[in-house]
Amino acid sequence: MSRLGILAGTGALPQRLAAAHPGALFVQFEGLDVPRPSNPVLTASYERFGALFEGLHAQGVTEVVFAGGLARPQLDPTRFDAKMRQLAPGFFAAMQSGDDGLLRAVIEAFLAEGFHVRGAHELLPGLTATAGVLAGPAPAQGFDADAQKGAAVVRALSAQDVGQGAVVARGAVLGVETLQGTDAMLRFVAQTDPGLHPGGGVLFKGPKAGQDLRIDMPAIGPQTLRNAAQARLSGVAIAAERVLVLERDETLQLAAELGITLAAIDA
Amino acid sequence: MSRLGILAGTGALPQRLAAAHPGALFVQFEGLDVPRPSNPVLTASYERFGALFEGLHAQGVTEVVFAGGLARPQLDPTRFDAKMRQLAPGFFAAMQSGDDGLLRAVIEAFLAEGFHVRGAHELLPGLTATAGVLAGPAPAQGFDADAQKGAAVVRALSAQDVGQGAVVARGAVLGVETLQGTDAMLRFVAQTDPGLHPGGGVLFKGPKAGQDLRIDMPAIGPQTLRNAAQARLSGVAIAAERVLVLERDETLQLAAELGITLAAIDA
Repeated sequence: MSRLGILAGTGALPQRLAAAHPGALFVQFEGLDVPRPSNPVLTASYERFGALFEGLHAQGVTEVVFAGGLARPQLDPTRFDAKMRQLAPGFFAAMQSGDDGLLRAVIEAFLAEGFHVRGAHELLPGLTATAGVLAGPAPAQGFDADAQKGAAVVRALSAQDVGQGAVVARGAVLGVETLQGTDAMLRFVAQTDPGLHPGGGVLFKGPKAGQDLRIDMPAIGPQTLRNAAQARLSGVAIAAERVLVLERDETLQLAAELGITLAAIDA
Repeated sequence: MSRLGILAGTGALPQRLAAAHPGALFVQFEGLDVPRPSNPVLTASYERFGALFEGLHAQGVTEVVFAGGLARPQLDPTRFDAKMRQLAPGFFAAMQSGDDGLLRAVIEAFLAEGFHVRGAHELLPGLTATAGVLAGPAPAQGFDADAQKGAAVVRALSAQDVGQGAVVARGAVLGVETLQGTDAMLRFVAQTDPGLHPGGGVLFKGPKAGQDLRIDMPAIGPQTLRNAAQARLSGVAIAAERVLVLERDETLQLAAELGITLAAIDA
């Protein structure tokens, strides 16, 4: 008999997973502002992976899902338990090659403890989108070319573990997502002289080449659409089947209201 | 007998070229705020390439250098002369693939008119730097790794014609230069939560792979150092022999004053 553990980050996704899997154990990490669902809850700390693994085993958890935004927390090494002291050198080394390296190392640690690691998109139906226009106006001329160029930028940077998004306007790259995330990139574009992209522009979101979709799967939501509008963009393109659309109804409604083409593309 | 024409953009470089080549014809474009040197001056417009070519030929100019920052001007097609009407479709098409495409097309147009196109670094000695620390403190631990990762990001994006710079802090990419330029990227990094890069970080500047150094050669100057300090960076790395160091004395002095390692690297 398998039980799911939800390793909860910020945002709406952990709550939706908890609601869809009421028997799942909801793991709440210290220092993260995450609402408590009606599920059973295990409180944990990044500094005590030993206690976390023990707690999960004791509650019969056999598979885990990483969901939501996970900030890079400030860790206090003096609070590490024995397991974390053992894991920390590997985590630290992995971190030097970027977020992806660290996340892969964390997955490895869970696998080594005998847990299965699932992707959120496997546990919640309808989280991703098949290719096509999802909401908003029909794609403007140049939408496809700009979306594909954004995809090419993300692909080109895959080995460097930079980010999962880019903004392109009439072939000119106006933003490349970095550690600060999509919202920060869109705020940067919003500060750009509008004369540089009079025709709008397109946000592309998609996973890096070779990215493990069980963790850090790219996602968009209502805030993405609001920020895209602030940045005077005309479209948002996501990789079909490989990007989470959070709070889907509101996201699609906002695209229509704000006049932003929202489409999933094969990229 | 060859005469040089200086196609002047913004910044200090055109003035320095003019001072070093007092016989050169200084081409001042309408709409650009460029101080007038003591050289002979030809006033020109991006909208009238025919008149520009004729003026250069009439004044005996056989070789040209593009120098300084060239904004993407707002052009009025009704003001185009016959030559520009002929060139415009090609320029427009080239622009779709980014700044580089446009600049290459502009070079081609000058070559087709029989001009030689020179690089500023060929005409002013000592504008670039050989590998080594130029100013500021000795490189901190991680400087080389961050600088090389920045170089890898710029290299990876070469085919996408994105930008000529990146900011990396302890292996994490915090900024990728886009159309808005280096200063905009550094302002973006300055807005980043300092907790994301407590150890500083390194700005790398270098040409894209395959970039024509006769035009749009990457450059740093005093403002780059000031902005790097605002972004709480600990180092600035430039590609040896392939980046212009403008206002060199002031730039090096600022690096020392601000405690920023300034080094040229083989990348």
